[in-house]
Amino acid sequence: MRATTIHAPFDMRVEDVPDPKIQQPTDAVLRVLRACICGSDLWAYRGEAAREKGQRIGHEFLGIVEETGSEVGGLKAGDLVVAPFMWSDGTCDYCTEGLTTSCVHGGFWGSVGHDGGQGEAVRVPHADGTLVKLPADAAGDDHLLTALLALSDVMGTGHHAALGAGAGKGKTVAVVGDGAVGLCGVLAARRLGAERIIALGRHEVRTDIAKRFGATDVVAERGEAAEAAIRELTGGQGCHSVIEAVGTEQSMRTAVNITRDGGAIGFVGVPHGSGTGLDLSVMFDRNIALRGGVAPVRTYIPELLPDVLDGRLDPSPVFDLTVGLDGVPDGYKAMDERTALKVLVKP
Amino acid sequence: MRATTIHAPFDMRVEDVPDPKIQQPTDAVLRVLRACICGSDLWAYRGEAAREKGQRIGHEFLGIVEETGSEVGGLKAGDLVVAPFMWSDGTCDYCTEGLTTSCVHGGFWGSVGHDGGQGEAVRVPHADGTLVKLPADAAGDDHLLTALLALSDVMGTGHHAALGAGAGKGKTVAVVGDGAVGLCGVLAARRLGAERIIALGRHEVRTDIAKRFGATDVVAERGEAAEAAIRELTGGQGCHSVIEAVGTEQSMRTAVNITRDGGAIGFVGVPHGSGTGLDLSVMFDRNIALRGGVAPVRTYIPELLPDVLDGRLDPSPVFDLTVGLDGVPDGYKAMDERTALKVLVKP
Repeated sequence: MRATTIHAPFDMRVEDVPDPKIQQPTDAVLRVLRACICGSDLWAYRGEAAREKGQRIGHEFLGIVEETGSEVGGLKAGDLVVAPFMWSDGTCDYCTEGLTTSCVHGGFWGSVGHDGGQGEAVRVPHADGTLVKLPADAAGDDHLLTALLALSDVMGTGHHAALGAGAGKGKTVAVVGDGAVGLCGVLAARRLGAERIIALGRHEVRTDIAKRFGATDVVAERGEAAEAAIRELTGGQGCHSVIEAVGTEQSMRTAVNITRDGGAIGFVGVPHGSGTGLDLSVMFDRNIALRGGVAPVRTYIPELLPDVLDGRLDPSPVFDLTVGLDGVPDGYKAMDERTALKVLVKP
Repeated sequence: MRATTIHAPFDMRVEDVPDPKIQQPTDAVLRVLRACICGSDLWAYRGEAAREKGQRIGHEFLGIVEETGSEVGGLKAGDLVVAPFMWSDGTCDYCTEGLTTSCVHGGFWGSVGHDGGQGEAVRVPHADGTLVKLPADAAGDDHLLTALLALSDVMGTGHHAALGAGAGKGKTVAVVGDGAVGLCGVLAARRLGAERIIALGRHEVRTDIAKRFGATDVVAERGEAAEAAIRELTGGQGCHSVIEAVGTEQSMRTAVNITRDGGAIGFVGVPHGSGTGLDLSVMFDRNIALRGGVAPVRTYIPELLPDVLDGRLDPSPVFDLTVGLDGVPDGYKAMDERTALKVLVKP
């Protein structure tokens, strides 16, 4: 089969690789119908996260089960399924508690020796615990498939951030970060009943999506000017709930400074650097909580799925460029240069 | 009247100061029956927190109302009351929500122009919002008065930490810090139903109190050795809930490293330095939350008071040295040299 590999920074290739086979009785093999490129894939692309030469990549995909191992009970060939961005056994203490990202048998797509999502097929470890069945007729609905694909990462991650930030009825929510996760954070906050949603961003294409997703206000300023603008919008108090979907020291500092006393930051931006952007004295004096991390999207899919199926939740607008498998390297380039927000891959 | 003043680092005096008088119609004047010295007072004592020459000090006290301003409705002369460590109006948005430490009219005892608790009397701003009435007959019960005094700070602060850490039924709780707040954190965790409470500490007098308060395990090691010991006690997983009652980079690092995936740190140690002790990558990968800050003890007093009155909650053992007002400078010396855990003052 053909799959995307990374050979060096900025050197993405699509090449022939061995067909995936069942290796463990709990495996399944899945034919990929839709995959995509994640903002976090760019860290590998830019050489900021180390990869071995020829390593696979891609952690967001959905497709059709082709084959199952002898111990797979809940799935059969022909099932349409979506994969979360990590696999998990579904039975350990952490999985039982819903923290599938801490599964004792969990792992990442594209790690050494494992398939990635940006290819024609994927061997899925712990298939029963990992994959979530979708209605078979969704396979024929192009728009719906795209929306469902977002459940593999960005929609669940936005939901995790919104939960961590305590977004809900009557709350004012700010979203730091105008990437696909931040935009899904807007959607999630609206879904959870937030009264007011302030999106920070200066790229009109993205802030337009934020408004479409439910943002009531857009703040285009940055740094201290953004903080001042948000204080003015909130009667000087700041926001109950702040979604941090960037992961830099500066974005964390902004998040702390725009949170209302007693409020919370839901952080899902992969942290670059330590906690030096967190002024603990400010957090202490104002009782600001920090919650979040790598999102256990496997747990959230069953909750979010019905809303996506009936159209109430539609994250599909975050995909603004579609490529075939051979176009994946161009897709990376487009996302790196910010000419694309999120790239959909149809193998 | 006589009151404690601070003139320079290590220069505490007890001297004549003007008698407090009603200045605002919302004031009360309170005659102090019991006060005490807080670990956080030591930062001023050691010169690590700046004070003006002659500034008052002490933020934990209870006593008898002597006089009330014309707009004070809920209190009258002769009432026995306890004061939380900050005053608050009881009516602003934050007070209504229970975050009395963020009160828009709030302030600290002993700040410039205000009385401190380590004296014969105190002018109390916003008396209706600040003071909590106690049963009159408690005034004659020496042991009970001491226990009630802990409601002004350490017991409520320990409770805040335990709530922030998510302590509760079935949870394993670790307590970093063997001072009065950490010990009250043990009491609070037990009160909230924690299954297992691991106290970190090497001073036997203190760990004995921790055991009396409900600690099921004591870890005397420090740093990485303590982390290893706790991992061994918890089947390699760490603790659901960690109370951080120190505030240094090292203690925060320990707290992060002993928290179970998906768990929470309740931090109430006044932070020294920024968030550099917080490894955000670890917190992200393992979904560790950080919650806490300056404790809104005014909000907690009504909840904790019945338990103290009926003896189910008795924080009084944290007081291990009693002095009169003239003995306050010696009390500071004893706490600074760690020969006393917490000093009770009977003016």
